[in-house]
Amino acid sequence: MSQLTLEEKAALVSGKDSWYTATIDRLGLAPMMMSDGPSGLRKQLGTPDQTDINESIEAVCFPASALTACSFDREQLNQLGHQLGTAATAEKLGVLLGPGINLKRSPLAGRNFEYFSEDPYLVGELAAAYVKGVQAEGVGVSVKHFAANNRENRRFTSSSNVDERTLRELYLATFEKVVKQANPATIMCSYNAINGTLSSQNRRLLTNILRDEWGFKGLVMSDWGAVADHTAAIKAGLDLEMPGKGDQSVDEIVTAVKNGSLAEADLDRAVSRVLKMIQDWQPADSKQANPYDMEAQHEFARKLATNSFVLLKNENAVLPINKGDKLAVIGELAAHPRYQGSGSSHVNAHRLVTPLETINQVRPDATFVAGYSLTADRIDQAAIAEAVDVAKSADKVIIFAGYPERLESEGFDKTSIDLPANQNQLIEAVSQVNQHVVVVLQNGSAVRTPWADHVAGMLETYLAGEAVGEATWDVLSGKVNPSGKLAETFPLRLEDTPSYLTFDADLQDENYREGLFMGYRYYDKKKQPVQFSFGYGLSYTTFKYTDLQLKVTGDHVSGTVKVKNTGSRSGAEVVQVYVGNRTSQIEKPIKTLANFVKVSLVPGEEKTVSFELDQRAFSWYNPRKADWQVDNGQYDVLIGSSSTDIRLSDTVELDWAPEQQIHIDQSTYIGDLMAQAKFAKAVEQVGLTDVFKKLADDHDPAAKMFRNMPLRAATTMGVTPAKIDKLIEIMNG
Amino acid sequence: MSQLTLEEKAALVSGKDSWYTATIDRLGLAPMMMSDGPSGLRKQLGTPDQTDINESIEAVCFPASALTACSFDREQLNQLGHQLGTAATAEKLGVLLGPGINLKRSPLAGRNFEYFSEDPYLVGELAAAYVKGVQAEGVGVSVKHFAANNRENRRFTSSSNVDERTLRELYLATFEKVVKQANPATIMCSYNAINGTLSSQNRRLLTNILRDEWGFKGLVMSDWGAVADHTAAIKAGLDLEMPGKGDQSVDEIVTAVKNGSLAEADLDRAVSRVLKMIQDWQPADSKQANPYDMEAQHEFARKLATNSFVLLKNENAVLPINKGDKLAVIGELAAHPRYQGSGSSHVNAHRLVTPLETINQVRPDATFVAGYSLTADRIDQAAIAEAVDVAKSADKVIIFAGYPERLESEGFDKTSIDLPANQNQLIEAVSQVNQHVVVVLQNGSAVRTPWADHVAGMLETYLAGEAVGEATWDVLSGKVNPSGKLAETFPLRLEDTPSYLTFDADLQDENYREGLFMGYRYYDKKKQPVQFSFGYGLSYTTFKYTDLQLKVTGDHVSGTVKVKNTGSRSGAEVVQVYVGNRTSQIEKPIKTLANFVKVSLVPGEEKTVSFELDQRAFSWYNPRKADWQVDNGQYDVLIGSSSTDIRLSDTVELDWAPEQQIHIDQSTYIGDLMAQAKFAKAVEQVGLTDVFKKLADDHDPAAKMFRNMPLRAATTMGVTPAKIDKLIEIMNG
Repeated sequence: MSQLTLEEKAALVSGKDSWYTATIDRLGLAPMMMSDGPSGLRKQLGTPDQTDINESIEAVCFPASALTACSFDREQLNQLGHQLGTAATAEKLGVLLGPGINLKRSPLAGRNFEYFSEDPYLVGELAAAYVKGVQAEGVGVSVKHFAANNRENRRFTSSSNVDERTLRELYLATFEKVVKQANPATIMCSYNAINGTLSSQNRRLLTNILRDEWGFKGLVMSDWGAVADHTAAIKAGLDLEMPGKGDQSVDEIVTAVKNGSLAEADLDRAVSRVLKMIQDWQPADSKQANPYDMEAQHEFARKLATNSFVLLKNENAVLPINKGDKLAVIGELAAHPRYQGSGSSHVNAHRLVTPLETINQVRPDATFVAGYSLTADRIDQAAIAEAVDVAKSADKVIIFAGYPERLESEGFDKTSIDLPANQNQLIEAVSQVNQHVVVVLQNGSAVRTPWADHVAGMLETYLAGEAVGEATWDVLSGKVNPSGKLAETFPLRLEDTPSYLTFDADLQDENYREGLFMGYRYYDKKKQPVQFSFGYGLSYTTFKYTDLQLKVTGDHVSGTVKVKNTGSRSGAEVVQVYVGNRTSQIEKPIKTLANFVKVSLVPGEEKTVSFELDQRAFSWYNPRKADWQVDNGQYDVLIGSSSTDIRLSDTVELDWAPEQQIHIDQSTYIGDLMAQAKFAKAVEQVGLTDVFKKLADDHDPAAKMFRNMPLRAATTMGVTPAKIDKLIEIMNG
Repeated sequence: MSQLTLEEKAALVSGKDSWYTATIDRLGLAPMMMSDGPSGLRKQLGTPDQTDINESIEAVCFPASALTACSFDREQLNQLGHQLGTAATAEKLGVLLGPGINLKRSPLAGRNFEYFSEDPYLVGELAAAYVKGVQAEGVGVSVKHFAANNRENRRFTSSSNVDERTLRELYLATFEKVVKQANPATIMCSYNAINGTLSSQNRRLLTNILRDEWGFKGLVMSDWGAVADHTAAIKAGLDLEMPGKGDQSVDEIVTAVKNGSLAEADLDRAVSRVLKMIQDWQPADSKQANPYDMEAQHEFARKLATNSFVLLKNENAVLPINKGDKLAVIGELAAHPRYQGSGSSHVNAHRLVTPLETINQVRPDATFVAGYSLTADRIDQAAIAEAVDVAKSADKVIIFAGYPERLESEGFDKTSIDLPANQNQLIEAVSQVNQHVVVVLQNGSAVRTPWADHVAGMLETYLAGEAVGEATWDVLSGKVNPSGKLAETFPLRLEDTPSYLTFDADLQDENYREGLFMGYRYYDKKKQPVQFSFGYGLSYTTFKYTDLQLKVTGDHVSGTVKVKNTGSRSGAEVVQVYVGNRTSQIEKPIKTLANFVKVSLVPGEEKTVSFELDQRAFSWYNPRKADWQVDNGQYDVLIGSSSTDIRLSDTVELDWAPEQQIHIDQSTYIGDLMAQAKFAKAVEQVGLTDVFKKLADDHDPAAKMFRNMPLRAATTMGVTPAKIDKLIEIMNG
């Protein structure tokens, strides 16, 4: 640091270009490369001013986070991290950008496919496992987008207006867990503002919370183009602006230091973090690129997808497909699948295998028709008629349907969750002539499925990665028993979604009016019927839950539950543990996910599944104390196969918080006072027995009204201020 | 003022006791009396420390505001004001406390019966008419409870946390209209805090908004017991603490002035307002009490009720009751009606006439059974069996049902909107044996009516005042054709209500998370089915709407519509005018009530109804500008017989706002820029035509992503900062 000139320091806090840290040739400081990569490497090809984000090196395209989240499997996400770390090491990358760990607040949000879930616990657990996997291979991870980046429209300027408790319990919680558990190399700040202050200039976010409270030791970089005022950003705690703005960046910073608007100490802090990141994560010069086994990664992508697919419906065991079934395959997406997202996570896939290719190989007698076009929503009656014809003579029909890429991408939000009309009409028409229709869905986020009651089977495959064809057939054919669970709610109507009233309504502000009641927390509380619940997913076998045991210890609750495979196939079940707060007198959801365990069982096998619930599972964030709080009292512990299929439950009584002495003052409510043991004696002493005695009558509305008054308002009952003072003195004495 | 000692000034800013202003005997300043009174005088009897709020002078009990609001009739509310003013003059009152003009945010709120509506326009119009009526009789009005007092639980301390736009467009709007249109003598501040500051100590509310913005010239008094810190309250703009705390008040203020914590100028301001109030509204000494005609007021109460009752259902014209119909009258509420609310609005009624008394008189052959008990919810099968028996042999059955007083009152909130189980079960049982059941409802706020599909008729009478019996029979018998419209939505389920997630959830905070989407604004936007809509109400005749004409002038929109009575009875219709903003890019309801006209028509008669819509009807409150804003563009004008029965509609194009010059800077979005005419030329000049040309493709998600970026982020497309600067210069030049 001491060797650096001011200009060199200024250069270091911006990128050299879009992908490299700055170089200081004089000191032999080489640039370190970063690349996009949550679902596979997107190492840009071409010159630094390359604008075609789809031109990048060849890499294996893994399933998108929207799908991997459905695995509810920390180990699988950890392995994915290792695979990506291996590839990044081979490509001499220092830092891999991603995963995005923002919550799915609305199914309209354009980037949902890159995000995991609507539930912060699930996101935090899976992302932490992923980060550990990548970093164990010697490659740093930049976790993004910090924070509350839950819409795409006007994302560079819109302010996410969120109350403190909601921020802490939902939108910051994913980052808190990953920082504390997985120690990521860097955090990438988001484009948006939070409560009026851009994340890139948000000192409270980048310094007070991230570093002072959570103890983050790594580097904070900007999302690409998120810096509006570099000096303000450095002051707030941003370390690295990306991409670099070249000489302009250097000039800005040098001028700011010289005119005193930026303290050199702040610049030094940022520089030291950049240097430390390079030191920690720069691939060694001597390190040879290890050509890695892309085919093995392709197989992993296939396995990850099959373990994540969610079987949404399987009436009369239409799936798995039987060996002798005569198949009709319908839908352009079988031939041209959506298997990855659009935008910075886009990968130049190593080897795409489409569903049609796989099916053609294993079932050469299957008939295929496109049924619809992906480039337009126009209903093609001839194509539908052709599909209906084919369906009539098939034993089973597999319709590939989904949300077209032109309507779903990073960079803009959707305006509907409906599939194109040409697909919906096709499904309705085909399901009228065949009772054994299975719809395979490819989409980035929850969609509406108005035909759900008319088809026999539904398999949600999201964006499954380059092995989409093989993986889909693995599950359809029963080679793999599906075990994925939805990581987001599928609503019946867009209007039913918690943020519907306000999402994208305002160009400048995104008001998180629903607060804590997002995702299943909303549907639960409103008793709002949904199409498919959070945590829902079927299997080709069945599971039975018995014998829930809970034990409260000094600082956590331990539990066990027995799960048995009661069907005839091997399978895996995600045991979901929810906690319901019955105690705190605050806004609260009915229940929140507090743990999950995925367990594999052969037919007839029973295992005892253990889980722990820490204090956080029972806590709420109290903005008045600026701290987490756990209240003494009863809590429900609910064991479910989904959020709406609770199999077992029990309550625990917690007494972790210190006993609170109630201090009586003028604002103490009379009803609270009357509940105290010493009250009767005290009012006798001040001669107010008659006044308060009649307030005990539960059938007298006036009595109820007066109980709901503070002591100071006892004057309205004719009690003198002096007597109130005396009563307070006695009660506190 | 100059003659007053500090101690005398200190005495004047608190009440002498619960009902009088302070006296200064030395100067001959007599006390002025105030009394509760929105539905009739509640002039307390007995000593000043009297605590039984039900002991007061005899007065005529008029319908509660929950019912009078359903009249949608400014003239009727003005007449009510005159009646009350007459009574108050006779009783030598200076100021009448009420009406409460808070909005009905939740049907659970305990004081809803005292409030008018969920819609601020309706409340403001009716309350202004009422205030003008009272004050025309020489009696001042104290309009309450300022502001955002929408729950009873912990009302003395809970904070109503409301965003600025919602406050302005909903919760403050009622007060703004009444202050500006009716110039009330006083405003009563509410118990609760707003965004953390008690209303009684809220300078922004009591001074900046009320006086500086709205020009209020009257006095601000506290709700009874609302002052927690008198010095802070005076500083904030409170003038009069009620009730007085005697010597303690004087000591506090004197000490505060002496130690400098309260400026004497602030105290003088409050004192001068107290003196001015007394001067303006103190009944003249010489004024003899005019004994007034209580029987005439009783008749007015009857007429007001009949013009407000809402006919909710009338299948197969079960109503009006025919002369020859054999009647069964069922329900304890027929004999012991709920006809007024509980708490400070309670009146010692002059002459209660119960429905049973009236029916016994006009139909001595009608059979009555109680059917249920009002004192408990327990289902009495014998009573139900008796009712079923009676119902079997009747031509028509009138069931009186309602919400018991013990569960609904000022001072506490409800926890359910269900009628007691013994009433619901009675209605179900009776409706199974008789196809001609009419349910007459008595309740303070919206209730759930799960049996609505099983009965033939429903009449909502709320709390109808002392003439409840005569008024109810007037409408049941067809002597009066009902013309009331619901001033609040009746939901299908409590869970469907906009504030359900959070209402009363937190002891300290009431978060107005639903924002603007309260009442019908919520159900409209969510497309949430309801039991009965805002503005809904049937008649014994029918109305046809034709020929909507709209004309935009310089500062308002004028409209006319023809309404014809197409049935065979005379009747009145409430023509409702709603405005829908299609233009502004902000959170917005589908439509809001902007005017209403009540028109009476004999059979076959057609009238042309005229209405005006001022700028406010098309405006929204922009917190960034701290002002109302009207945007140029299209607006819907919708004419409805209810909020969900829109008969005619048209659009108007407004151009009232000055043209806005778009200033281009680094934060201007590329998509906005591309929409400008001069853009193509400008990019050509800086040599960026190729970069931007491909962004026009609507089928390319990357193009859509880049259009949704600000200019400063064009660096991510490889555009240099210098070229961006140049482009901005050209575009602005």
